[in-house]
Amino acid sequence: MKFNIALLAGDGIGPEVIDQAVKVSDAVAAKFGHEITWKPALTGAAAIDAVGEPYPDETHDVCVASDAVLFGAIGHPRFDNDPSAKVRPEQGLLKMRKKLGLFANVRPTFTFPSLLDKSPLKQERIEGTDLVFLRELTGGIYFGEKGRRDGGETAFDNCVYTRVEVQRLAKKGFELAMTRGKKLCCVDKANVLETSRLWRETVQAMEKDYPEVEVSYEFVDAVAMRLVQWPNSYDVLITENLFGDILTDEASVISGSMGLMPSASMGADIALFEPIHGSYPQATGLNIANPMATILSAAMMFETAFNLPEEGKAIRDAVNKALAEGIVTEDLADGGKSYGTSEVGDWLASNI
Amino acid sequence: MKFNIALLAGDGIGPEVIDQAVKVSDAVAAKFGHEITWKPALTGAAAIDAVGEPYPDETHDVCVASDAVLFGAIGHPRFDNDPSAKVRPEQGLLKMRKKLGLFANVRPTFTFPSLLDKSPLKQERIEGTDLVFLRELTGGIYFGEKGRRDGGETAFDNCVYTRVEVQRLAKKGFELAMTRGKKLCCVDKANVLETSRLWRETVQAMEKDYPEVEVSYEFVDAVAMRLVQWPNSYDVLITENLFGDILTDEASVISGSMGLMPSASMGADIALFEPIHGSYPQATGLNIANPMATILSAAMMFETAFNLPEEGKAIRDAVNKALAEGIVTEDLADGGKSYGTSEVGDWLASNI
Ligand SMILES: CC(C)[C@H](C(=O)O)[C@@H](O)C(=O)O
Ligand SMILES: CC(C)[C@H](C(=O)O)[C@@H](O)C(=O)O
Repeated sequence: MKFNIALLAGDGIGPEVIDQAVKVSDAVAAKFGHEITWKPALTGAAAIDAVGEPYPDETHDVCVASDAVLFGAIGHPRFDNDPSAKVRPEQGLLKMRKKLGLFANVRPTFTFPSLLDKSPLKQERIEGTDLVFLRELTGGIYFGEKGRRDGGETAFDNCVYTRVEVQRLAKKGFELAMTRGKKLCCVDKANVLETSRLWRETVQAMEKDYPEVEVSYEFVDAVAMRLVQWPNSYDVLITENLFGDILTDEASVISGSMGLMPSASMGADIALFEPIHGSYPQATGLNIANPMATILSAAMMFETAFNLPEEGKAIRDAVNKALAEGIVTEDLADGGKSYGTSEVGDWLASNI
Repeated sequence: MKFNIALLAGDGIGPEVIDQAVKVSDAVAAKFGHEITWKPALTGAAAIDAVGEPYPDETHDVCVASDAVLFGAIGHPRFDNDPSAKVRPEQGLLKMRKKLGLFANVRPTFTFPSLLDKSPLKQERIEGTDLVFLRELTGGIYFGEKGRRDGGETAFDNCVYTRVEVQRLAKKGFELAMTRGKKLCCVDKANVLETSRLWRETVQAMEKDYPEVEVSYEFVDAVAMRLVQWPNSYDVLITENLFGDILTDEASVISGSMGLMPSASMGADIALFEPIHGSYPQATGLNIANPMATILSAAMMFETAFNLPEEGKAIRDAVNKALAEGIVTEDLADGGKSYGTSEVGDWLASNI
């Protein structure tokens, strides 16, 4: 098969880890007889510097014309402590999500047996954890009207959800639960927020269409606790944009394998794949960033966007082998021998 | 001295744990020659059942006429899965916070050496943890305009903050940091939210008044991670209402001592003291709930509201002694001998 893949490396360690995912994907393509045409395009601070816009129209056109998007990371500290910055890398991310219609962010948290000891949690708490968050990604307070009043003394952000937005996300959640443990947890704050009450009533009304799925409703504060206490008690969790932002990051550190966690963002047409870690500016250019999360995101891309499970498995097997043989970056090396970002990529590509 | 204390037992295990705090406070008063007049008043589901209102005006009058408020817990599951319920216990809580002007919720997370093994986190992660959250409690999305449009198909919640609201909370944060480790972390989502940008710029402008305090700014998603990874790296954290709701609950489970964590809510005039745990409906009436968090909240009341540190210390010493001697409820008994809620209260009262 032939694929066009938009390649959005972004900022910080983005370009370095993306390079490794390209190597590994090309190796998979060679092995299985596919042809990938990579379509690099600018995003984030890199795009601001080049064309003054974090998600330029040309980049959007490249994405729309592609079969999938592989994304690195964006964000740069020079924008973080400057509340007055007019253009921010993150705006590009949000614009991209919105314009590509990527309403469902899929974030699995699972464990690698060989990495259990990296978890801040005790082994018995984390063992067997295999959960997936479906975070709504194009609505809520991220996209509602925001601004200032009273000469700047009052700020506001509006959180808005429609029933249709909740339904399409929840539908993906129910469907995903059916392919897994058949448990769905709707995370909200229905004791305080009207948007959460809409979420809850919408999901309740859908329960009858999925009689096999056991549905629970939990408040976001309770989930923030239970994720640390009994992460292995969850299967699929669905939630709105901001809660998802906080909880998926919390979930990412419990497994001890944060540097390895991939993610996908899906919409009606196209899907985007990216590591859950950020742009990690301090590590930029040092050839120390762990590329495995991006490489496993490429595996998700083969499986989900191209429906090629064997190709995905070839990548996962290579990663497992690298972990078993200690071909890892310093974050996983436990003070022992470690490899550079590109060496890990080379090793994985040649072990496909 | 003479004190009037409003006693708001609330729902679920509220009345049981409050009873123990009364016993212990009375014992302290007897020992130090104070006179407490308890002023019981209705809140939560209990108040809805009695007078159709979760925070009746009579209750408010009792609070306003008192020197402090001691609060149990509110909430009842019969309201949770009924998005159409017109009156909810939680509304009472929010109304109470607003009407009493309790804008700063103080939630410490610390460790009891004898309970470290209860933590889901590894001992080396949790050791030395001693942090305090200052959560803004009367603003933000909890109190903004909320409702439905489009015949119920669209829901909205507005998040609003004024500079003055941020300043008064941040001021308490800086002052608290000065009495402790002199580190202040402002938790926001300034890369997305306008309200967060107001928070950040307001705190930045206050830095010069507290040159000794080392201030950091972190995104809420990053804090959700770091709380699990390195909780002992924090000192004082300030944040807005909803972020505080999620993060303080997350923080409460990391120490392993959740059943022991007290809290205070402060405003211009009066302060309220309550355990951070909820109404725990499943345990209602079983005499198994751990009363220590409420009792330690009473200690905070003596220290903070009445400026009587010795009295507070007498309570803390008794609790430490009970922990050391295993006079604990079943949640802390490790399958060994455990005591009932009221037995623990009796023991503490007689050991003051
Ligand atoms: C960078 C930021 C805007 C973004 C978000 O909040 O969605 C990030 O935290 C994420 O989770 O992808
Ligand atoms: C019961 C609920 C309204 C409340 C809140 O969200 O503030 C509770 O979770 C808390 O933290 O005190």
